[in-house]
Amino acid sequence: MTAGLDLTVTGVRLTPILVADPPLLNTQGVHQPYTPRLIVEVVTDGGITGYGETYGDTKYLELARPLAGKLTGRRVTDLNGLFALDVAVDASRVEDAVDVGGLRGVQTADKLRLSVLSAFEVACLDALGKALGLPVHALLGGKVRDAVEYSAYLFYKWGAHPLGVAGEKDDWGAALDPAGVVEQARGFTERHGFTSFKLKGGVFPPEEEIAAVRALAAAFPGHPLRLDPNGAWSVETSVRVARELGDVLEYLEDPVLGTPAMAEVAARTDVPLATNMCVTTFAEIKEAFTEDAVQVVLSDHHYWGGLRNTQHLAALCAAFGVGVSMHSNTHLGISLAAMTHVAATVPDLHHACDSHYPWQSEDVLTERLVFDGGRIAVSDAPGLGVELDRDRLAFLHRRWAEDDGRLRDRDDVAAMRVAEPGWTAPATPRW
Amino acid sequence: MTAGLDLTVTGVRLTPILVADPPLLNTQGVHQPYTPRLIVEVVTDGGITGYGETYGDTKYLELARPLAGKLTGRRVTDLNGLFALDVAVDASRVEDAVDVGGLRGVQTADKLRLSVLSAFEVACLDALGKALGLPVHALLGGKVRDAVEYSAYLFYKWGAHPLGVAGEKDDWGAALDPAGVVEQARGFTERHGFTSFKLKGGVFPPEEEIAAVRALAAAFPGHPLRLDPNGAWSVETSVRVARELGDVLEYLEDPVLGTPAMAEVAARTDVPLATNMCVTTFAEIKEAFTEDAVQVVLSDHHYWGGLRNTQHLAALCAAFGVGVSMHSNTHLGISLAAMTHVAATVPDLHHACDSHYPWQSEDVLTERLVFDGGRIAVSDAPGLGVELDRDRLAFLHRRWAEDDGRLRDRDDVAAMRVAEPGWTAPATPRW
Repeated sequence: MTAGLDLTVTGVRLTPILVADPPLLNTQGVHQPYTPRLIVEVVTDGGITGYGETYGDTKYLELARPLAGKLTGRRVTDLNGLFALDVAVDASRVEDAVDVGGLRGVQTADKLRLSVLSAFEVACLDALGKALGLPVHALLGGKVRDAVEYSAYLFYKWGAHPLGVAGEKDDWGAALDPAGVVEQARGFTERHGFTSFKLKGGVFPPEEEIAAVRALAAAFPGHPLRLDPNGAWSVETSVRVARELGDVLEYLEDPVLGTPAMAEVAARTDVPLATNMCVTTFAEIKEAFTEDAVQVVLSDHHYWGGLRNTQHLAALCAAFGVGVSMHSNTHLGISLAAMTHVAATVPDLHHACDSHYPWQSEDVLTERLVFDGGRIAVSDAPGLGVELDRDRLAFLHRRWAEDDGRLRDRDDVAAMRVAEPGWTAPATPRW
Repeated sequence: MTAGLDLTVTGVRLTPILVADPPLLNTQGVHQPYTPRLIVEVVTDGGITGYGETYGDTKYLELARPLAGKLTGRRVTDLNGLFALDVAVDASRVEDAVDVGGLRGVQTADKLRLSVLSAFEVACLDALGKALGLPVHALLGGKVRDAVEYSAYLFYKWGAHPLGVAGEKDDWGAALDPAGVVEQARGFTERHGFTSFKLKGGVFPPEEEIAAVRALAAAFPGHPLRLDPNGAWSVETSVRVARELGDVLEYLEDPVLGTPAMAEVAARTDVPLATNMCVTTFAEIKEAFTEDAVQVVLSDHHYWGGLRNTQHLAALCAAFGVGVSMHSNTHLGISLAAMTHVAATVPDLHHACDSHYPWQSEDVLTERLVFDGGRIAVSDAPGLGVELDRDRLAFLHRRWAEDDGRLRDRDDVAAMRVAEPGWTAPATPRW
């Protein structure tokens, strides 16, 4: 039997889609009514197809097409070689500091490349697993837990997208004050059983967000709570918030921007600092870890370069006594499955992972993944254990194809401008 | 097809052996005529057996037996879970500072445990690869090179073991001065095609070893050269040797003991410092890397905890701009195959790996691995691509079984005492 070694890529299908996104607020603005994702299918000569998913903005598509062309003829087992694939990246695509990418740290050509290759890696692992009868976690050394815990990802949100903007309705209602946040949290626990909570902050003045976290602590005593203002605060504000919420916070996420400021905050509080902005590439680790700037790294297999790089990152964090958990941007079920497989293999995973998935009413799967007690069961089915719904994929792709271009690139600032003319990305620190 | 996932361990065979070792000198003493190794066979319900190899000293055997008992019934894909297996380690086994383990850094119970589990991991990967028709490198993400380069591992050596000591003859002759070292190097290039050279130092006063390296540089101009005194020198001596050999050394390996001293030497020379003594566990990395104490980590999959941990280590080194290559103790072909598979998968491998293999006239394989141009070709056969010679294994095991106990634990100090009564492990720094 040599199916595994001989399994060769015969083609790659790239399907950009737009998926519904509720009006979730962050410090940059608000989510657009639809957000782009890219669905990757790696087709092999064994008649087996593997699935992957990543960011779908134009700059990712521009890179994905030539990279996909280089996959044909390669073995799906050749994952280390995959990450040596390269194509030129238009520098202007990675130097746009006010891009929503600002919410996930530095932008570099290499990070862009890794964000695309990671989807190819996941698709290759899915195909290989299907060919071998092995779940993806077994290709990563095997699960060390049967279910992966996720955190409720709470957002300040409007009841609906601004008038005159197309979009799907959601049934969450508005959440713009402590009572609204607690109500949203109750909805998350009722629907999905989450027992830890993260609030996306940086939207309102710190006092209001402190009050929201206090209200959560009162409503869910003893449950782990996190607050993430996406670097909107000054060092002084961060230290003050840490002091005021120190008794209830599991960690504070990216209170300030940049390693020096994070290190300063870290030195002045016992509240652990987590990040998916200050440390988002291997190149940023040395400074951050030697300065003790972060206590928890929130990995994201999309831009860290796949599931095996996520394992490397976890080992690296363990060696430095830094915690590890998982960041999430808007994503669908393919990525949630991939996140769950790799998270299942990481021994030192002591914080519930983030996931936007509950906010996504649309998916490309025949069956949605289900949170049970806030956890996703780790699939033992071959590959990722998910199946594409081609009708849904085609429908969501048509939405992308028919878009006039305004929604093909996520832009929370532009979305906010619809409601607040003249809105620009706030200068930091905002408070 | 679910062979991969269902492949379950039905038993583990542990075969301690004694293999011939030439009278190679180091700062502790001299190699005994026979050295212990442990051959591991993981037997699965599919009728497939995987091979592994590790240290065979008594303390490893004592740990291997109960750990082996815990393997039965486990899936061979469950590698992450494997490393959670634990049994109590007799503390007295790891606190013997004058043990030859001193040549490979700190001794801890965890390192001892990893040294055993790594052999089980390799055997599981071998079995899994055989079951799936995949070479081990493909289970590690695929090779990024078709051959792995090794360095000639030169030793000061006697022509034969002391009179009255049993042992096998070797055809290398003595090497006790610069001319002898150069002659040995020529033998290595003629037989195996090596193009880089490492001299095990710490045996003679530094001036003599500097002269030997100078003689190598004259005989092999432009070839990478390394000198490894196993921590026998003071900081001042190390800095002086680095200054005198700076123009010809690829790196200086463990000139002094301990991270603070290594950091001091590193700060005072441009010659890179390599180590397999100061950084031998993940726990030692933070201090060494933040102090810039080492520039190249020589990994050893035996005590770092297997092939996947070796990959983690390599990624960690890459993130910190630290080079990586491979350490070697006396080992046979199973371990050389394992080293070659994992080394083939590491993108940033820029130094030839070490291997004692050319010194081992005996092996447990039906076919010895062959160096061609100093390189071992990466096997694409299923598993490790090696086959056990059971007659040889039985023969070498009989030698172990019939030993009166004196050779079952490597002891270079005791071996030296045969020739030099009263010899004890030299105090450090020796020079």
